[in-house]
Amino acid sequence: MTVDTDVLLMAETPPARRGRRRRGGEKAGPDLFPQKPFRQPRHIYKPLEAVSADELEAIHDASMRVLEEIGIDFLHEEARDLLRAAGADVAPGSERVRMDRAMVAELVAMAPTEFTIRARNRAHDLHVGGDAIAFSCVASAPNAVDQDKGRRPGNQEDYRNFLKLAQFFNIIHCVMGYPVEPVDLHASVRHLDCVADLARLTDKVFHIYSLGRERNLDGMEIARIANGLSEAEFVNTPCVATVINSSSPLRLDTPMLQGLIEMAKAGQVSIVTPFTLAGAMAPVTVAGALTLQNAEALAGIAFAQIVRPGAPVVYGGFTSNVDMRSGAPAFGTPEYMKAALVSGQLARRYNLPFRSSGVCAANTVDYQAALETTLSEWGAINGGAHIIKHAAGWLEGGLSAGFEKFITDIDLLQKIAEYLTPLDVSEDALALDAIRDVGPAGHFFGTQHTQDRYKDAFYAPIVSDWRNFETWEEAGSPTAHDKANRLYKKALEAYEPPALDPAVDEEITAFVERRKAEGGAPTDF
Amino acid sequence: MTVDTDVLLMAETPPARRGRRRRGGEKAGPDLFPQKPFRQPRHIYKPLEAVSADELEAIHDASMRVLEEIGIDFLHEEARDLLRAAGADVAPGSERVRMDRAMVAELVAMAPTEFTIRARNRAHDLHVGGDAIAFSCVASAPNAVDQDKGRRPGNQEDYRNFLKLAQFFNIIHCVMGYPVEPVDLHASVRHLDCVADLARLTDKVFHIYSLGRERNLDGMEIARIANGLSEAEFVNTPCVATVINSSSPLRLDTPMLQGLIEMAKAGQVSIVTPFTLAGAMAPVTVAGALTLQNAEALAGIAFAQIVRPGAPVVYGGFTSNVDMRSGAPAFGTPEYMKAALVSGQLARRYNLPFRSSGVCAANTVDYQAALETTLSEWGAINGGAHIIKHAAGWLEGGLSAGFEKFITDIDLLQKIAEYLTPLDVSEDALALDAIRDVGPAGHFFGTQHTQDRYKDAFYAPIVSDWRNFETWEEAGSPTAHDKANRLYKKALEAYEPPALDPAVDEEITAFVERRKAEGGAPTDF
Repeated sequence: MTVDTDVLLMAETPPARRGRRRRGGEKAGPDLFPQKPFRQPRHIYKPLEAVSADELEAIHDASMRVLEEIGIDFLHEEARDLLRAAGADVAPGSERVRMDRAMVAELVAMAPTEFTIRARNRAHDLHVGGDAIAFSCVASAPNAVDQDKGRRPGNQEDYRNFLKLAQFFNIIHCVMGYPVEPVDLHASVRHLDCVADLARLTDKVFHIYSLGRERNLDGMEIARIANGLSEAEFVNTPCVATVINSSSPLRLDTPMLQGLIEMAKAGQVSIVTPFTLAGAMAPVTVAGALTLQNAEALAGIAFAQIVRPGAPVVYGGFTSNVDMRSGAPAFGTPEYMKAALVSGQLARRYNLPFRSSGVCAANTVDYQAALETTLSEWGAINGGAHIIKHAAGWLEGGLSAGFEKFITDIDLLQKIAEYLTPLDVSEDALALDAIRDVGPAGHFFGTQHTQDRYKDAFYAPIVSDWRNFETWEEAGSPTAHDKANRLYKKALEAYEPPALDPAVDEEITAFVERRKAEGGAPTDF
Repeated sequence: MTVDTDVLLMAETPPARRGRRRRGGEKAGPDLFPQKPFRQPRHIYKPLEAVSADELEAIHDASMRVLEEIGIDFLHEEARDLLRAAGADVAPGSERVRMDRAMVAELVAMAPTEFTIRARNRAHDLHVGGDAIAFSCVASAPNAVDQDKGRRPGNQEDYRNFLKLAQFFNIIHCVMGYPVEPVDLHASVRHLDCVADLARLTDKVFHIYSLGRERNLDGMEIARIANGLSEAEFVNTPCVATVINSSSPLRLDTPMLQGLIEMAKAGQVSIVTPFTLAGAMAPVTVAGALTLQNAEALAGIAFAQIVRPGAPVVYGGFTSNVDMRSGAPAFGTPEYMKAALVSGQLARRYNLPFRSSGVCAANTVDYQAALETTLSEWGAINGGAHIIKHAAGWLEGGLSAGFEKFITDIDLLQKIAEYLTPLDVSEDALALDAIRDVGPAGHFFGTQHTQDRYKDAFYAPIVSDWRNFETWEEAGSPTAHDKANRLYKKALEAYEPPALDPAVDEEITAFVERRKAEGGAPTDF
């Protein structure tokens, strides 16, 4: 517990008056924001079930019939060869692959139920599965947005600033994708600069994209160097993750299959997440969309086990619905929440870790943004999710990464973590003596029981403005959006790069330079 | 299911262009807002438990020791006489009342586990307990606020407008208190005008304040007339509810005890809700505040059973924490959420219905407002609450009732209701044939399966703005707050007074006029 009210008050004090607290008068210290040390929250409540055991079996059965009777197109010959050799039905000259349920069950059962992904700072190792929860920040947004400069295409500066925020806040446990796509970097070398930044500006577990096998191989090499592992050690140590999205309905494309192959071969983590939007790429019914999600997710997971039995994988659930007026994806809807609960039930049925998301369709940091994001988290947490992606900074259905939204979401995530902390019901906490001492009509503020505890008693919010109306109005009636604008810049000021062995740093530089000299990776993906 | 996309689009159309849809060209029809018919949502998920069975017993035990060893001050001689006669330890010349746990258990066991409160429109009867949930709107705010006129002291016009919104939206199941206090009405007769408005402008179950026995008697009389019941029928038919707040710590004051006595005698409903703010009127620990809450709630509930065994009561949980910097109440905090879960566990331990709240400390309709309100609802719903008060329109820790907040919260409540609707997992919903027909790389939008269902497939939000960024920006970048400003006025336009038998209407008028002529009620409370 590190809630320090003095420190909290400091955040309200203009920089000029904070001189004595600054180190060398140079920059704001990292203690501007009260936060607990890095720690993955634990599921202390039972996951909720949105469907009965029989209904779950009906979804399972329908998805098995999809795999058996309809099949999935695997757009990669090497993958089809592997599948055929493993017993799948692959029609000659066709991309269609059918698997019977016994084969799927046998393969899926090979996947580990839980595992640890190593971070270069071992204190940031990520446990995946069991009762552990990991929050990751927004990923893959084409635009960045803040109040000062508005919405703009992603660029390296914004990319790096988001990485700094992801590193600064202990409630962000991993960086599962580029928070924003830096389109000012050429696509052939972007992955080299970006992954090098992930390895340098953060010391948490990160993600590499499956956009052609070269990018997987380059990303894994940087992760290997950053972790100081030999090649032999690396392939037995999960250090890096990728997300495999199927091209719903019923397709796994070439780069994704290359990614699955390379990651599985190297013992690295694949989070297999179909993007099954009910009413668009999936049936308009939530149960139908979940049937499709389950078929596609298990197809990818089974395939990874063919490549390497025991390859670490995660069951990704991203089923939502579209806005039927526009066809745009909607998030944080009631349908989304129910889909998250059922996705968790399905993942548990197969003893797989479950990935969900903290997402919204709002264009700005308003009531809608909080409502949809919090409802997404409600589904994810009650659904028993292990990795919750996009949990800080996501806006516009993923079309922009917001700096202020990052901060407001941090407050949400820290609150959830506190909600997931067991209540102290010790005799001391029951406070019978304090109640006796105060008696009727008294007040607890001045008691020793309160004085001994008040600093650490409650979660201290980052964003919530609890000043009274008059004071708040005099201050210009700032919204949470306004307050977060000030705070994200303070967090960037307070960021300190994590320590990195200079030899490792040099080795990363050398690798990136060599690969750039070789031309990087093909851009025809 | 009444989601109609044409109707939704209409809400975006200026009134002048909606002429043909208007009835008699006079006012907007009630179909401007897609909403489902009045129906109480059901708990379809298991309540979550924040403490173990042993820990729950520890809280129970500590609260029993409070009642046995410390006691509670009952500031009403008639109440103490009743308690003494029932076996409580009441020291002569003292207000302190001690009860042993056997006596408390015996009395609390007399309270019904569930019951129905009759509404004058029987379609709006309110079930309390079991798996039923009831949402009530903001209550008792001294100020009203909207974007147009800012924050002002409560007045009759705003009061009536909130009642109209409470009537208009089917997701509001009852009106548990004046949404805003109309201070422009003299305190001696305010309750007469206000309760008459409740009985006329709404046809849902309502609440009367316990601010001196005359007000309880007057309010019950209006409820009796509105329900068309004889006096004998009324005392055997719950028709109206009151909230009994203890003056924490450890006191029940005169008006509250008069209210408990009159309501219980008449077989009407008392919602006993201690206001146990951890760090102020309660110990700084959540477990300690819950111990105090439990002692006070059970004292009131046991007392009601002395007055009339079987009197309908509700266990109210309102434990939250203060902002330790200012002493102001905080809401929707992690501590609040955990307290809500434990309060539900306690209520279930005593087989009592459980009341919680949808509250926040935000000054405006921003990310904070949604975050705190949604987290409060998360605690209430996962805690198994039966009545959720303040669920629409509450701002500033209850210091203001917001018109826009009312609308944004309606969206939250409707989403929760939809989340609580069982998922359709029929063969038809599993959509295997649709998946087969579309096959890989297809799209579901044009399929018959989608076309047959799209209108009703998904919850249509009131507030969420799902336009793309460019269109939204061209429209002036409205926040949810801005959109709700437009919508609350449309809802007021669309409001239609519920039918009322003219004879009943006249009887209410006659009663109110007679009581006003008599001078109303004393104002020295």
